[in-house]
Amino acid sequence: MCQLLGMNCNVPTDIVFSFTGFALRGGRTDTHHDGWGIAFFEGAGVRLFVDHMPAIESPVAELIKRYPIKSKNVIAHIRKATQGHVALENCHPFVRELWGRYWVFAHNGDLKEFHPPLTGPFRPVGNTDSERAFCYLLQELRARFGDAPPALEALRAALGELVHHVAGHATFNMMLSDGSALFAHCSTALHYVVRQYPFPTAKLADEDVSVDFAQVTTPRDRVALIVTAPLTTNEAWTAFATGEMKVFVDGLPLE
Amino acid sequence: MCQLLGMNCNVPTDIVFSFTGFALRGGRTDTHHDGWGIAFFEGAGVRLFVDHMPAIESPVAELIKRYPIKSKNVIAHIRKATQGHVALENCHPFVRELWGRYWVFAHNGDLKEFHPPLTGPFRPVGNTDSERAFCYLLQELRARFGDAPPALEALRAALGELVHHVAGHATFNMMLSDGSALFAHCSTALHYVVRQYPFPTAKLADEDVSVDFAQVTTPRDRVALIVTAPLTTNEAWTAFATGEMKVFVDGLPLE
Repeated sequence: MCQLLGMNCNVPTDIVFSFTGFALRGGRTDTHHDGWGIAFFEGAGVRLFVDHMPAIESPVAELIKRYPIKSKNVIAHIRKATQGHVALENCHPFVRELWGRYWVFAHNGDLKEFHPPLTGPFRPVGNTDSERAFCYLLQELRARFGDAPPALEALRAALGELVHHVAGHATFNMMLSDGSALFAHCSTALHYVVRQYPFPTAKLADEDVSVDFAQVTTPRDRVALIVTAPLTTNEAWTAFATGEMKVFVDGLPLE
Repeated sequence: MCQLLGMNCNVPTDIVFSFTGFALRGGRTDTHHDGWGIAFFEGAGVRLFVDHMPAIESPVAELIKRYPIKSKNVIAHIRKATQGHVALENCHPFVRELWGRYWVFAHNGDLKEFHPPLTGPFRPVGNTDSERAFCYLLQELRARFGDAPPALEALRAALGELVHHVAGHATFNMMLSDGSALFAHCSTALHYVVRQYPFPTAKLADEDVSVDFAQVTTPRDRVALIVTAPLTTNEAWTAFATGEMKVFVDGLPLE
């Protein structure tokens, strides 16, 4: 199974510490070595890095660990190929534009049984079931709301229905962001933690590294991290329920 | 004015040498220091690097110079902001998907007078006139050909008309690629050279660096480079005529 990592914050924050532990799962502490990718929103723009080399060997992953790009919404993915061959066009996250916003999507799980008709403007470039599901979500959002984006509550309700429909066909752990909110759905495994004042010293589960967040943050900062399996051993991670979708805005899950 | 660089090859080729000279125009040998970007096709996938830091200071540009990504189609851009503020979402190249292929676009020139109605699925994320023109081109291609991509000759004819229409409004030096062909249109300044066997030793115009291409290529390799102003001082660059669009496939301009 692939691994997902999402970050949603109230102020632009770097992800160096969490990405360091996560990247180790791409070939060292776990067996996900069929490519990886990470997308950072920066204002309305997106910075996307994808690679079909294992995350622990990739010079681009090395750059990200050294170069603290600050972002309010990040989605990362380490791939274990189950559908689609190992190629750049099959690496998550995927990016498309809808309503003049970029949308970023990553998925883990198996959607072999999900073959929706794609009749709108969104078509897969690669041959993964994940990109097909992403195209389906955007197609259906555009069909429901037309040319103008809805308010967040309407978007959340529509996505809840669509995601529930997809998850009825198979395993659909996924993260989706339009740069303002981060939507996360759990079929089998997702956990989150909210880091805020007073910040702890966190210890990576995958490597003998600690960071005292109080040294690198201000009392206003609030960061939600969402991940397949908890990244740290001394923070209180909350497991998603099966079939649960959460929406994170400004570093907090919405009620 | 911004600077454009395109490369179209018959086998995947790295662009380290040409990018080294080109990147110097981002803040050292020229005054284009409002961001830069480069997109590489790799199979059907695209690797896009954009930055709003000057190309000579950017750690991402440094990575590209050291890490030879091989590609058959590359488009790069160094920006001098005339429209739109300096932000990631305004950096070229822009990427969109149409017909299950990624399309990459970069532009230099001024399109202040060009405000086409955008009624289809392609909307600008940033606020440049360039991204607006790119959305227009894709919208019109989709309107003409529907859900299936046409053959290259029909695509070339349609793009020729559309580009001529846009260029009637203002300055439209542009490059566009779908990963198989590279389309380049000149309003005011574009030059190209085809490098093939027997390969010369080329000397960068912007820095005291030479490369003996015979050492890094095979006799089969053929590379077309298209650029705003010639990059080397000892190769025979051909200037585009005003209003001319050329299509490059497998390292050669089509007749």
